[in-house]
Amino acid sequence: MRPNTRFAQLACGTRSQLSRSTTPACSPTPLASSTGGPQLSLSSHHHHRQHQQASSRCPYARVSVVTQQRRRITIKQLDTGRENRERVVILGSGWAGYTVARELDSNKYQAVVVSPRSYFAFTPLLASTSVGTLEFRTALEPIRTRRTNVNFFQGWADGVDLKNRKITIEEAVDDPTSSLALTQDRHANQTAEQRLEERRLEAKKGRLFDLTYDKLIVSVGCYSQTFGTPGVKEHAFFLKDVGDARKIRNRLLACFEAAALPTTSDETRRQLLNFAVVGGGPTGIEFSAELHDIIVEDLARVYPELMPFHKITVYDVATKVLPMFDEKLGKYAMENFKREGIDIKTSHHVEELRPGAPGEKADDTDEHAVFTLKIKEEGEIGVGMVVWSTGLMQNPFVADALNEVHEIPRTFERIEAPPEEAKKGPDSIHWRVKKDKRTGSIMTDSRLRVKLTGDAENKPEAILKDVFALGDCAIVEGTRYPATAQVAAQKASWLAKRLNKEDLEKKGFTFKNLGVMAYIGNWNALFQGGDGANISGRLAWIIWRGAYLTKSVSWRNKILIPIYWMINWIFGRDISRF
Amino acid sequence: MRPNTRFAQLACGTRSQLSRSTTPACSPTPLASSTGGPQLSLSSHHHHRQHQQASSRCPYARVSVVTQQRRRITIKQLDTGRENRERVVILGSGWAGYTVARELDSNKYQAVVVSPRSYFAFTPLLASTSVGTLEFRTALEPIRTRRTNVNFFQGWADGVDLKNRKITIEEAVDDPTSSLALTQDRHANQTAEQRLEERRLEAKKGRLFDLTYDKLIVSVGCYSQTFGTPGVKEHAFFLKDVGDARKIRNRLLACFEAAALPTTSDETRRQLLNFAVVGGGPTGIEFSAELHDIIVEDLARVYPELMPFHKITVYDVATKVLPMFDEKLGKYAMENFKREGIDIKTSHHVEELRPGAPGEKADDTDEHAVFTLKIKEEGEIGVGMVVWSTGLMQNPFVADALNEVHEIPRTFERIEAPPEEAKKGPDSIHWRVKKDKRTGSIMTDSRLRVKLTGDAENKPEAILKDVFALGDCAIVEGTRYPATAQVAAQKASWLAKRLNKEDLEKKGFTFKNLGVMAYIGNWNALFQGGDGANISGRLAWIIWRGAYLTKSVSWRNKILIPIYWMINWIFGRDISRF
Ligand SMILES: Cc1cc2nc3c(=O)[nH]c(=O)nc-3n(C[C@H](O)[C@H](O)[C@H](O)COP(=O)(O)OP(=O)(O)OC[C@H]3O[C@@H](n4cnc5c(N)ncnc54)[C@H](O)[C@@H]3O)c2cc1C
Ligand SMILES: Cc1cc2nc3c(=O)[nH]c(=O)nc-3n(C[C@H](O)[C@H](O)[C@H](O)COP(=O)(O)OP(=O)(O)OC[C@H]3O[C@@H](n4cnc5c(N)ncnc54)[C@H](O)[C@@H]3O)c2cc1C
Repeated sequence: MRPNTRFAQLACGTRSQLSRSTTPACSPTPLASSTGGPQLSLSSHHHHRQHQQASSRCPYARVSVVTQQRRRITIKQLDTGRENRERVVILGSGWAGYTVARELDSNKYQAVVVSPRSYFAFTPLLASTSVGTLEFRTALEPIRTRRTNVNFFQGWADGVDLKNRKITIEEAVDDPTSSLALTQDRHANQTAEQRLEERRLEAKKGRLFDLTYDKLIVSVGCYSQTFGTPGVKEHAFFLKDVGDARKIRNRLLACFEAAALPTTSDETRRQLLNFAVVGGGPTGIEFSAELHDIIVEDLARVYPELMPFHKITVYDVATKVLPMFDEKLGKYAMENFKREGIDIKTSHHVEELRPGAPGEKADDTDEHAVFTLKIKEEGEIGVGMVVWSTGLMQNPFVADALNEVHEIPRTFERIEAPPEEAKKGPDSIHWRVKKDKRTGSIMTDSRLRVKLTGDAENKPEAILKDVFALGDCAIVEGTRYPATAQVAAQKASWLAKRLNKEDLEKKGFTFKNLGVMAYIGNWNALFQGGDGANISGRLAWIIWRGAYLTKSVSWRNKILIPIYWMINWIFGRDISRF
Repeated sequence: MRPNTRFAQLACGTRSQLSRSTTPACSPTPLASSTGGPQLSLSSHHHHRQHQQASSRCPYARVSVVTQQRRRITIKQLDTGRENRERVVILGSGWAGYTVARELDSNKYQAVVVSPRSYFAFTPLLASTSVGTLEFRTALEPIRTRRTNVNFFQGWADGVDLKNRKITIEEAVDDPTSSLALTQDRHANQTAEQRLEERRLEAKKGRLFDLTYDKLIVSVGCYSQTFGTPGVKEHAFFLKDVGDARKIRNRLLACFEAAALPTTSDETRRQLLNFAVVGGGPTGIEFSAELHDIIVEDLARVYPELMPFHKITVYDVATKVLPMFDEKLGKYAMENFKREGIDIKTSHHVEELRPGAPGEKADDTDEHAVFTLKIKEEGEIGVGMVVWSTGLMQNPFVADALNEVHEIPRTFERIEAPPEEAKKGPDSIHWRVKKDKRTGSIMTDSRLRVKLTGDAENKPEAILKDVFALGDCAIVEGTRYPATAQVAAQKASWLAKRLNKEDLEKKGFTFKNLGVMAYIGNWNALFQGGDGANISGRLAWIIWRGAYLTKSVSWRNKILIPIYWMINWIFGRDISRF
């Protein structure tokens, strides 16, 4: 049960109340503004229909009146600045959302980005920033800039009212989690009642508000998957956003500093400097390579006496790492790693991660403690840091808020409906957003429009003509495009172009594989072109660096990135920790 | 009562136990290693003498045996690497400590820096980093580098045994406060018993250890003074270290982002963007100037609609700001500020700072809340951030641990003792470290050696020939050198040179005033030369930037600083927040 986002879709809104506002405007969320509405129940899907029929006993009526008196909430500038343009609300500021927001024609559309973080993160450079090969900010682009015409609100999309084209947003200006990998619904530990109470308070404080849209672009990405492995959520380090990179950098340096203390035994040194990377995908491999680089290139000179103690191991449940690369490149990588002393352990299963050394009782107050990683094939080992990079979990917004369709929106369109059914009208069937069975991704048509599926025997289908989904949270039905920045950015550019030209119907999206790359350490990389070309070693490394340099978004970063590469090459990476 | 550091000087050490170790070596702190010792009492100074006579009922005897078995604590590398050199232990990595550590001749001395932070902070650039004119790391130099020969342990000096030349160190590798301004003893909220228990645990875990020295250099700097003003410790922002600068930068941008939310009323906007700076010294003035710069140069373009709401005010209790500058320069600065719209309110008294808007009840859970600043002359005003920069408080290590002298060390030397008294021997008098009455600073002679004063009618004096004090925590008796980086660095260089040449007795330290500078915004500065030359405006600004560029320590930063100046001038400051 994840009650948080689901009931946002219902909130206290009744048809009558919600239907007022089909013109774009901002109003306090229904929870706060409604003066009547159905009684809420968070317990299950099956109650939905009842809600829609129930009436006017909203427990928040009292609150909302007070709130309305206290605040006059309007997005005046937004509504004034909109003029006659359509408002496109974009959820998320990742590869998909940021790209589409920048590329939409601001003469035709008013782009409004809603995201819990105020920047876009250039994910391929995060591994470099996590060890200081690059500075954190070189991998970031602020969404608000002097030059672009993008509007921005820092918040979580929390609920969606498809009928009335309205998003409920939970403000996130000071949310400390917004720059970190997320591993669970941020309200997962709340009961339905607690969440309800929280929403009530937030609405009262103005931390929850509504925003109407003409078009909605869902690009909220994914969370990190821990497969419920005990202790991983709490004690592992992730690498999905810049806050994660900073945590890793600080922890890595702290492990060395702690190992250098005279009171640290050699046994503890060995554990502190034992780094485990779980997941042999490109991220895990690139991180291991960067970690190895900083140790041999910099830390070896600063802590020469600690060199006998360090170790890097990559664990994967699969039988091989880097599955997207062909045999030859994979083998090249393995040999490189072997030479560098990085252990790759495939077919290994992590069972638990807990604080404290093996055999010791965990001690929560002991912040320097090493961790114990339990591996099915190896037993317990002491480690200084576990970097977890094993896969994606569906964003709770997608899983919950973007799920049931309670009222059929105007932009609903049946696909190939048998005439007799089409006659009955869409209301006769219960619709929900179509999801991929395995991943939970939103299914779209080739125009990236969200697909719906109806609860009826003949599996009826429909699309929402004003709701698009792209990036890691969506998949074009019938394709197997991977969850990568390349796909996300291509979809985003395609969609922006189509919307700008207003020729969406003309031709569907197709992905052009530009190749895959991975840095494998010691100035070597792998490059496998979309056309099958395979390059490895130093040349691939040059292509790798060149690609990131030309791809990086702002001139600011195009200048700073090579400067940092050079400065860190000459002077070594900065090991200050704060 | 600050029991923490005081009893470290006593710990369980008895004469017999402590006197073993006059050769440099590292051992677990007496608390953990002693197998006997006097009973402890933390209640008052007057108990000290009793302790030294009491015997062998140390409550930690049991613990220590276990600890010793579990850990074999030696600083092997340190002792081996020492060879025949004297070990100089340097407490603190600020202007004084970092400078002396780098300049000591490593052929003659083994320099060991002990500091809770792993870097040196170039304080004059902190105001620039707090608004992103420069990146944080350009104001930092890691203590460990590839090139220097300086040993480092990340920890707090916690106690000192002057007789046996031994420092007790509390490990601080993961201490989150070590990059922040400190406003109180970190154990201030512990009772004597809690502290005792904590020390016991820390010793057991190896987080407390001893380090012997041949020479000790005390350069632990000062804490920030809040004069006990209610709420300031908890809610104000300081600007003393890089962690403070980061907090300010994030808060500033969060205030703008929160003000941009559609649910924020104009009233709250005005409060969020009302910035108060308390203290009209160079730091407060430079910060206000930098704050004004980022607002008009960058934020005005990104949040044009918020410009009517922002305001900067500097409060000071004194009748004028920048007291170290002469009349003409002070007036120039005032006029500049007036033109820029920064309010300077002298003779104003801050009485309280609390979360929540004026007239509202404080709500601890409301992180975005504005604060209420209570000013004697103005009443309550709502503010988004208060930056507090009003003065120095003595470091608790200086106040407590470096206070009483319990056993007369070998390096003790009487100054001008009357013959009949000198005959009686130093043991007949109770000695303590001589402190400045007003500031509590350590008094040194002109050779920067710590002075002692005896509890006797004729005010006898002595020096410790192996303990030096410099920087903000010390003052040369009879001088009025200000607590500045300039004085700290000059003392440090002087001392390193004297020690390197072994000619300490030759000639005392004198300060050469190179002038004072302050940035006052909009590319203008003040420069008042040591010879009385006064320069203001653009030219002073060029001198100001030039000085920091040539003074900045590493080539890395000498290159990066102008690059950031240029990039931020061209592209604007980075407003990503994470
Ligand atoms: C370390 C690392 C390295 C990578 N390297 C590569 C590479 O070299 N090449 C490549 O092709 N791919 C790479 N990837 C994968 C690539 O980053 C992803 O495929 C891509 O980020 C997906 O883009 P997205 O916009 O769907 O999601 P994301 O980039 O994850 O962005 C999602 C956005 O949605 C926001 N959000 C989340 N919840 C909500 C909500 N409820 N409301 C509003 N906003 C929300 C998030 O804050 C974020 O801004 C890498 C990934 C990582 C982590
Ligand atoms: C924002 C700002 C701007 C400034 N600008 C100027 C300027 O332009 N010109 C100028 O001349 N002066 C300037 N100053 C003043 C100058 O920074 C100080 O006078 C100088 O830092 C004093 O040096 P110090 O080494 O005594 O102390 P600090 O630099 O404060 O260093 C003290 C060190 O001791 C460490 N420490 C604390 N407690 C312990 C302990 N128990 N054990 C071990 N280590 C400990 C601290 O972590 C720190 O590393 C500025 C100060 C600030 C805050």
